[in-house]
Amino acid sequence: MFKRNENRNAGYSLPLRAALDELAFNAEGLVPVIAQQHDTGEVLMLAWMNRAALDDTLATGRACYYSRSRGKLWRKGESSGQTQQVRELRVDCDGDTVLLQVEQQGPACHTGRRDCFYWKVEDNRLVLDRAPIVNPDELYPG
Amino acid sequence: MFKRNENRNAGYSLPLRAALDELAFNAEGLVPVIAQQHDTGEVLMLAWMNRAALDDTLATGRACYYSRSRGKLWRKGESSGQTQQVRELRVDCDGDTVLLQVEQQGPACHTGRRDCFYWKVEDNRLVLDRAPIVNPDELYPG
Repeated sequence: MFKRNENRNAGYSLPLRAALDELAFNAEGLVPVIAQQHDTGEVLMLAWMNRAALDDTLATGRACYYSRSRGKLWRKGESSGQTQQVRELRVDCDGDTVLLQVEQQGPACHTGRRDCFYWKVEDNRLVLDRAPIVNPDELYPG
Repeated sequence: MFKRNENRNAGYSLPLRAALDELAFNAEGLVPVIAQQHDTGEVLMLAWMNRAALDDTLATGRACYYSRSRGKLWRKGESSGQTQQVRELRVDCDGDTVLLQVEQQGPACHTGRRDCFYWKVEDNRLVLDRAPIVNPDELYPG
């Protein structure tokens, strides 16, 4: 459906549910999802959604992912308070990636850092260049 | 290695090659890679790299991906001219995603659009909201 309609003019639209049925979920039923802070443009994290997580996100307006490590839906911030209010949801040309524009509450990363991309290549080193903005022990108490 | 060092202070660094050996490539030997325009913050596309693509990117300073459809290295822009000069390469907290800050020449998308995320959810429709900046026939002539 995405390929077939890629030469349409701006303004062309598809019924949402039918289009989402055509997303190219991988063998595990997942698509990668990029979360970007809507006003600053920071790329906060990459996570995964299955169809249920996508439906939950659309229904609630808050990002819900699929946790591959826990094998279940992960309503971002449910335990930590680090919620993501979704301002915009986009799908790419191949229908195999989602881009969210979000309002991130506090740190997006489980380490307490604002975003997850704190390892930067500098010459022949990989340098950790960002400090936590919150003590991670405060995010996941007990 | 990433998990083990996540509580280090800013400035801590790892030897690059040893750290890249610890990336969490998936069963196909790939990691997702987000390409972001370095100055505007636009998320241009998501593609995939294997270790060889990553090494090629670091060696040349131009983004090289692994094309899953063609089953080989894809030196972005080699045939179309849509190269991505890499300004920064980052790895995330889990070592399973790469973020590139790039200088994108022309459109990043094979459709001739600046970026690949031109399908936007609006109410119960998925709306194509961006026009090509270049005719795709000019990108892949013949």
